[in-house]
Amino acid sequence: MAATIQVTALQWAPPQFQGQVRDLAVRWALEEAGLEYEVRLAGDDLRQSADYRRAQPFGQVPVYTEGDIELFESGAIVLHIAEKPALPGHTVLLPADPRARARAKAWLFAALNSLDVDITALGDIDHWAPNEPWGIARRPELEQMVRSRLEILAAQFDHQPYLAGDFSAADIMTIMVLRALRHTTLITGNATLRAYRDRCEARPAFQRSLAAQLREYARHAPSSN
Amino acid sequence: MAATIQVTALQWAPPQFQGQVRDLAVRWALEEAGLEYEVRLAGDDLRQSADYRRAQPFGQVPVYTEGDIELFESGAIVLHIAEKPALPGHTVLLPADPRARARAKAWLFAALNSLDVDITALGDIDHWAPNEPWGIARRPELEQMVRSRLEILAAQFDHQPYLAGDFSAADIMTIMVLRALRHTTLITGNATLRAYRDRCEARPAFQRSLAAQLREYARHAPSSN
Repeated sequence: MAATIQVTALQWAPPQFQGQVRDLAVRWALEEAGLEYEVRLAGDDLRQSADYRRAQPFGQVPVYTEGDIELFESGAIVLHIAEKPALPGHTVLLPADPRARARAKAWLFAALNSLDVDITALGDIDHWAPNEPWGIARRPELEQMVRSRLEILAAQFDHQPYLAGDFSAADIMTIMVLRALRHTTLITGNATLRAYRDRCEARPAFQRSLAAQLREYARHAPSSN
Repeated sequence: MAATIQVTALQWAPPQFQGQVRDLAVRWALEEAGLEYEVRLAGDDLRQSADYRRAQPFGQVPVYTEGDIELFESGAIVLHIAEKPALPGHTVLLPADPRARARAKAWLFAALNSLDVDITALGDIDHWAPNEPWGIARRPELEQMVRSRLEILAAQFDHQPYLAGDFSAADIMTIMVLRALRHTTLITGNATLRAYRDRCEARPAFQRSLAAQLREYARHAPSSN
């Protein structure tokens, strides 16, 4: 019998971050792979605790546990799930062909390291410092850097619908990273990337994951009085 | 017979980036693992070429080739090398114990995603915008964020010398990322991290890799007249 899989998630996130917290990528991978899992909600107190910090030193979500295995970093977790043998009737998250498999792994890292760095910096300005002089001064150059990276990403879809041919773990991490641009027109204004995002996000596994994340946030929304 | 391993590297980098370009992490992993490899120098023209961009869409180094396998992203490459069976007498770059192995993989990702993002942003200010008003305004908060991440990293060494117990691929990526702080006192001013850096960088495999990277830069230094 397989060990129970558990994933931690936030109870609630501010509206601008809902649908962007990274347990979404892990839920999505698990849903694609057809693996059963439990979600453990991690409030502020729990995430500050010494016990939690032993599993996730930075106090963030998600933490993934599966029997003796404990993992943090959504990229590491999605890769771990993708490397499991695919269940019949479910999505193969890493291609078997060695060349395509290498491509998928490289893009899984690239999403986090070659795309996310500038995208996060842009979001940091827009969410935390939109009116600060440094943010206003820095933003145009940063947006240009993001645009240039997005052009390179878009060019990957000239001859294939997904980053490694078929849909893979690389697309999960890439879409997760691109979702941090939802407050801008950088994706919606690019026909190739908009279509790529739409075909990934139309997947039932994504829709179930997003709905599950948002459902908890709605249930734990701070009362407004 | 094993396929020839080839790694691309820059011919030359400006002094402040020498010893920080990421082929260093790949060379280091290969040296630890005792694997033979060739270095292919990639000048500006080559890195702009369509052929190179097919292998590395962002035009950066390193690209890793091994027979049919082609990889980019230093994290993906170091992980690929670490997953090979260790040669007798050489370093095991991923522990065999599943718990420690998960820890090593999580920290390999954490180096790139939980440490590097703020460290890169700090370096970008210091190298490219030290006198610009936005850089001056932004820097103190960013340095505080880096310090807070470094404290969490340092706490990992309370009870162990390396991130996953024994030296592993996680330490290679972490040291690679920390090297981007060499122009600051953030590592040298922290006794725990300084000692960690020193014991990692004292390894003969690191010393050989660094010397090899710097040797090419010296050979291809732009003439000053």
